[in-house]
This record gives sequence, structure tokens and C-alpha cells, in this order.
Amino acid sequence: MKTGPMQPIEFFFDFASPYAYLASARIDDLGRRHGRLVLWRPILLGAVFKVTGMKPSMLMPMRDEYLRHDVARCARAAGLPLVWPDAMPLNSLIPARVFHWLEMTERSDLARTLAIDVFRAHWGRGEAPETVEAVADLSTAHGLNPGEIDQACRSAPVKDRLRAVVDDAISRGVFGSPFFLVEGEPFWGADRLADLDRWLATGGW
Amino acid sequence: MKTGPMQPIEFFFDFASPYAYLASARIDDLGRRHGRLVLWRPILLGAVFKVTGMKPSMLMPMRDEYLRHDVARCARAAGLPLVWPDAMPLNSLIPARVFHWLEMTERSDLARTLAIDVFRAHWGRGEAPETVEAVADLSTAHGLNPGEIDQACRSAPVKDRLRAVVDDAISRGVFGSPFFLVEGEPFWGADRLADLDRWLATGGW
Repeated sequence: MKTGPMQPIEFFFDFASPYAYLASARIDDLGRRHGRLVLWRPILLGAVFKVTGMKPSMLMPMRDEYLRHDVARCARAAGLPLVWPDAMPLNSLIPARVFHWLEMTERSDLARTLAIDVFRAHWGRGEAPETVEAVADLSTAHGLNPGEIDQACRSAPVKDRLRAVVDDAISRGVFGSPFFLVEGEPFWGADRLADLDRWLATGGW
Repeated sequence: MKTGPMQPIEFFFDFASPYAYLASARIDDLGRRHGRLVLWRPILLGAVFKVTGMKPSMLMPMRDEYLRHDVARCARAAGLPLVWPDAMPLNSLIPARVFHWLEMTERSDLARTLAIDVFRAHWGRGEAPETVEAVADLSTAHGLNPGEIDQACRSAPVKDRLRAVVDDAISRGVFGSPFFLVEGEPFWGADRLADLDRWLATGGW
């Protein structure tokens, strides 16, 4: 029998991943139903791909076509808006740094609503929130000073923090997006949320 | 309103794919529930990977470890036996040719039971049914003449048939295993059988 507080669900993702967008709309509710905190962990898949030798599906023949078809089908099923960005994949360095800067400065809730805002801008409206200006333009960021965002993105502690989060993810086996870890159990893909749900409900099998 | 006979479900797979093994245990029942024929289509992923630039997950750092964990977890959930083969991936050329030879000679039912036998030998018992001798040793093949199997695997019509099936699959967007096509709608992965099920139940969305 387990005692003590329940372990959180870690939700690793790259803003450039459409399946992470699909998962982002469901993961908090899933966590709530199981009484689990969900820790959002934006990472950079580019760094991970260097280890695995993978590359973005949207840059691969045949897989790109399926991805567009499948993501649209999943978005329709979930009732989520979807507008294909002109350029993919997004360079998610800046929004990831802004997220971690907000977390480092004890604004975790703001970091999460900003992440949701980035996902909605990129996948729901087809925008490219990959510059300081574009991120500062998101409604969540309206209370923030653009100069301060810019400075944060250039600061060594923020750069180091993102790098540390990515390295930690890789060291724990995270190689894709979205990727979930709870009590060491890994689940890769938005299509595995039902498995994660069942795992938490049953205690595993 | 649709009339006429319902389109079959095409089930594309490589015997070397553990997720195809998982799907093979469920797809016929799914087809039956929807009154659909299921056409089994063994292909060679090697030929597909040349187009996409992908390679087997079991040969990629990090993904290999996840695959072993995830396949074992899925097999437990499904109550399927799983013994990891010593060498992966299997060279599935011979069993694929034997399958298509049986189909070409109007023994489709035998082809399917042989395919199930190949999956069970490889993934359920960890064997390597990749030679004529090993395939002839499978219980399904006991009524067949090993010399005849060997001759079939070397014959131009059988080689051509497998090549044609693979080329046709690629031309219709099949890039992974298992991969399902029904009325032009593609579903990739054993974890999408629930989606395929819902698609057939609802007529799509």
C-alpha cells in the first residue's frame, strides 16, 4: 500500500509538436481526475534527435502526409481548432526559455497559461510564436515587459535551466513529444493518454 | 447512404514488427464485429524505410529501450505471450514470400494461419522463422512440402508478387507497421485500433 503524497505526472513536450498540442488540451484534466499534479516540461526535440538519430515526422516523405491527415482527424475528434502553420517545425527555443524563466521566477501558473497560449497561437491559429516579439504579443504575456523577456532569453541562468531540463529528460529516456513520466513509467504519444489514464486508475499491470 | 458490399480492412505489416504481432491478435475480431473482411498484407519495411529515411525503432538509441518496455506492457495487458528474440529485426523476406505464394495458389486461409504461426513463433516464443527450413517447421506448414516452399520462394512470380504488394502499399501511403487502410482512411500503429473501431462504428468524423 502506498503512502505519502502521490507523484506528479511529468508532461514533456516541444511546442513544435502537433501531438503535444492535442495532449496539452487533455492532460490537466486527466491529472485532476487522479489527484495528480501535472508538471509541464517544454524541451527541444532537436537536442533529443541528435541522440536518437530521428528527425521531425513533418520533414519525412509519406509521414508528413499522414501526420497532416491524422492530426486534423484527432483535432476534429477533440473539437480543437487547427490551422496549419506556414512553416514547420517551429523553432521553439524562445517560448521554451520564456516558460522556464517564468517557472524560475516562481510564476508557474503564468508559465502554464503562456504555454497554452503558445500552443493555441501556433496550432490553433497557424502563427509562429518563435521570436521574443511574437511571444510578448501573446495575451498571456501582456503583463510582462518585452525588454525583460528579451533579457531573460539571453541570460545564462535561463539558458542553463532549459539545457538542464533537456539533459535530464534525455537521461530519463524521453525521446519524443508528448512524453509522460509518472513514477518512472513512460508513455509516448498523445494516443497513449488512455493507457496513462488506465495505468493511474488501476495502479499498473 | 452507402450501398453494395462493404470495403475490406487492409492490414499491412512486417513480421519483424512487435506492434504488428500485438495488432494481429485483435484485427480479425475487430473486422468481424463490423462485418468487414480483413486482408492481411505482409510487406517489407526495409523497402519502405528507403523512401522515408526511417529505420527500425529497435536499432535506435532510447527508442529501443522504450519499445521493449512498451511492447511488454502491451502484451501483458492483452494476455499475449512474449519472448524477446535474440536477434532483431527478423529478416521477414521468406515468411512474406511464403504467405503470398499461398495466397497466389488460392490458399488464403492457410496463408493467414501461417502468418499467425510466424508471429507466435517469433514474438511468442522468441524463434527466428526467417529461413525456408524454419518456416517449413511451423505446424501450419506441416502439410506442405519443404522443397516446394523453397522452390516457391525462389520463383519469379512469387518474388514479383511481394514486390508488387510492397510497391502498392508505398504508393498508397503505407510507411509503418502495423498500418490499416479502409475506404482510403489510414491508421498507423497498434494503438490506433480503438480509433479504427470507432471510425467504423460511426462512419467517420
